[in-house]
Amino acid sequence: MFEDKERKEIESIGKYPLIQKLSEKIELSHAETLCGINEDASAVTVAEGVIFNASRLFMEYVHFDLTYFPLRHLGYKCAAAAMSDLLAMNVIPTHLRINIAVSNRFSVEAMEELMTGVRMCCHRYKVDIVGLDVGSSRTGMAISVDTFGTAKDEEMVKRGGAGEKELICVSGDLGAAYAGLLILEREKQVFEVNPEMQPDLSGYDYLLERQLKPEPRLDIINALKEKAIKPTSMTNVDEGLAGALAKICNASDKGCVIYENKLPIDTLTFNTLKELKIVATTVALSGGEDYELLFTLKQEDYEKIKTIENISVIGYMQEKSAGENLITNDEMMVELKTMGR
Amino acid sequence: MFEDKERKEIESIGKYPLIQKLSEKIELSHAETLCGINEDASAVTVAEGVIFNASRLFMEYVHFDLTYFPLRHLGYKCAAAAMSDLLAMNVIPTHLRINIAVSNRFSVEAMEELMTGVRMCCHRYKVDIVGLDVGSSRTGMAISVDTFGTAKDEEMVKRGGAGEKELICVSGDLGAAYAGLLILEREKQVFEVNPEMQPDLSGYDYLLERQLKPEPRLDIINALKEKAIKPTSMTNVDEGLAGALAKICNASDKGCVIYENKLPIDTLTFNTLKELKIVATTVALSGGEDYELLFTLKQEDYEKIKTIENISVIGYMQEKSAGENLITNDEMMVELKTMGR
Repeated sequence: MFEDKERKEIESIGKYPLIQKLSEKIELSHAETLCGINEDASAVTVAEGVIFNASRLFMEYVHFDLTYFPLRHLGYKCAAAAMSDLLAMNVIPTHLRINIAVSNRFSVEAMEELMTGVRMCCHRYKVDIVGLDVGSSRTGMAISVDTFGTAKDEEMVKRGGAGEKELICVSGDLGAAYAGLLILEREKQVFEVNPEMQPDLSGYDYLLERQLKPEPRLDIINALKEKAIKPTSMTNVDEGLAGALAKICNASDKGCVIYENKLPIDTLTFNTLKELKIVATTVALSGGEDYELLFTLKQEDYEKIKTIENISVIGYMQEKSAGENLITNDEMMVELKTMGR
Repeated sequence: MFEDKERKEIESIGKYPLIQKLSEKIELSHAETLCGINEDASAVTVAEGVIFNASRLFMEYVHFDLTYFPLRHLGYKCAAAAMSDLLAMNVIPTHLRINIAVSNRFSVEAMEELMTGVRMCCHRYKVDIVGLDVGSSRTGMAISVDTFGTAKDEEMVKRGGAGEKELICVSGDLGAAYAGLLILEREKQVFEVNPEMQPDLSGYDYLLERQLKPEPRLDIINALKEKAIKPTSMTNVDEGLAGALAKICNASDKGCVIYENKLPIDTLTFNTLKELKIVATTVALSGGEDYELLFTLKQEDYEKIKTIENISVIGYMQEKSAGENLITNDEMMVELKTMGR
C-alpha cells in the first residue's frame, strides 16, 4: 500500500476542502465543458447527435488489491477501463466523472495519488474530469467512474451488426494483464510468508504494465477512422476473448470460428504462463482486463486493415447453427463454450 | 433484510443471465433512447443544447442499513437521490444508469426487489434505465447511479448566481428524513436487545417515507417553469440546509440571513424530535437526505412564487461581509457555521 511520509487524515481537513484540494490540479481542455465538480451536476455543450455513456464500479478485494496496486496506477486503470467501453462503440470519450468511497485508513496524500493517476490518464486522452466526489466507506474502497462522449448516429458500432463470412479482428495482444496479475499474486504470497523478502518483479515489466496501467485503444479507433474503416460490430475484451465473442455472436445471431495459431499472445505472456503451468490460449479466451477491441469487418476491408499495426485477424463469422468454435494448433475443432466460459 | 421464500443463488444463474433477467421488465419511454444495457455504452439521440450528468455512489453501512431498509425502497431512493442532483440545476432527468456490487449473501430475488424499486422510481418520473451492471463485492453492497438529461443553455441554474436582497426559498419541509432514520435506528436497537419484540413504527409513516422513499422534486421544477420563474441560483438540500446555503453563498460570493420561524418543519418531525430530545432546527440545518431544492429568486418573483404550493421563503441574501446568519425564534442572531456545520 501507499506509504505515507507525512500523513494527513481526511477527517482533519473535511470532505469539501478535500474535494477542493483534489480538484485544483484538474485542467479542462474542451471548450464545450461549462461546469463540473463544484455544481450538483456537470454541464457540457453538445451538438445535435448521439450521446454515449458508460459506467464502471470498481470494488477493493474484487477488482484491485491494494497490497500491490499503487494508488496512482489504480486511478489510471479505472479511468482507462471506463474509456474503453466508449471506444468499443467507436466513440471517443471526452468527459469523465468519478466518485470514491474510502475509509479513514486512507490519507489525504493517498487520495491525491489516486487522483493523480486519474488525471494522468484523462490528460493523455484529452478527457475532461467534470465530476469528483469523495464519500465514506466502512469496508473497502469503492470507485465508480462514468464517462461520456458524442458521435454522429452513423458512427455508432453496436455488438449486433456482424454478418456471415466477415473477418474477426482483435487489437493488441491477449492474456498479458492476467499473467501480470498472477505474477503479482505470486509475489504477494511470497511476501506474506516472509515479509523480509523483496518482491522479484524484474523481467515482467510488460505484463505488470498491462495489469496495472492498461491503455484504452484510442489509437485503434483513430487508425480505423483514418482508413475510413467502420467495423460492422465491436465490443470491449474485458473478460476474455470468448466472452467478448459470445456477445458479438449472440447480438448478431451468428456463429464464428477462430484459430488458435492466430491469437495474438505476446512472447513474455506465453513464456510466463508456461512457467506457471497455464495454457496461454485458455488465458486469452477467459482471462480478463485486456481492454482490447474485438470487432468484425467486411472482407473487402482486409487490404486496408492489413496496413494498421496492432490488429490481428483471428477468424471469421459464420451461420449461427455452425456454433462458436476454435481450431486448435493441432487442427482440432473445439467449442468455445467448453474452453473459455 | 429481505426474506427469501424461494431463494435462488446469483452464482447458480450467472452474471449475464441475471442482468438479462433484471432487464426484462425495463420499459423505455423515450424515442431518443437508441440502446442501453446490452451494449458497452448507452446511446441517446440529443438535440443541440447542454447535457447534464450527475452521479452518486451509495455504500452499505454508510448510506443504508439493510437490517431495516427494504431493498425495493433502497432502489427507489438511489434513483430518486441521483435525479434530485439534476433537478437542482433546473434540468429534468431522462436517463439513468446503475451498477450494483453484491456479495453472495444476496439472492436473485433480492436483486429483483432492488431493481423493482429503481424501475418504479424511473417509471414514475419517465426516466429510461439505459445501463445495468451487476458485479461482485467481498464486503458490503455498493450501488452507483448516474443520471443525465439535456436542457438549453439558458435554462441552466448554477449555485453561483444569487444576488444581494434576493429571496431564499426551499421546497417541501426539512428534517423528516433524518427523524425517520432516528426512529428506525431506535427500533433496530430495541430489536437487537430483544429479537422477539416487533418494531413499533406506527404513527411515523411520513417520517419513514421521507427516509425510505424520498421523491425527487420534479413537481417544483415543473411549477417554476409553468410560472416562468427561473431561480438565480439553486442546489440540492441533501446534507442539511446549512451546507446547502453555504454552497450558494460561497459560489455567489454573498452572505445570507434566514429565520428560524420560517423554516418548514412538519409537525410530526417537530414532535418526534422533541420526544427524542433533539432540537428540530438543528436537524433542519444539519440533518440530511431531504432532497429538497434550495434556491434564490429576484424579489419581483415573490408574487408569483406565493401561489406555488410547497415552497417557503426563509430569508434573503446579503453582502458577503454580513456573513451567513440565522435569526432565532427569540430574535437572536446566530452564525450558521456554529449551528449547522
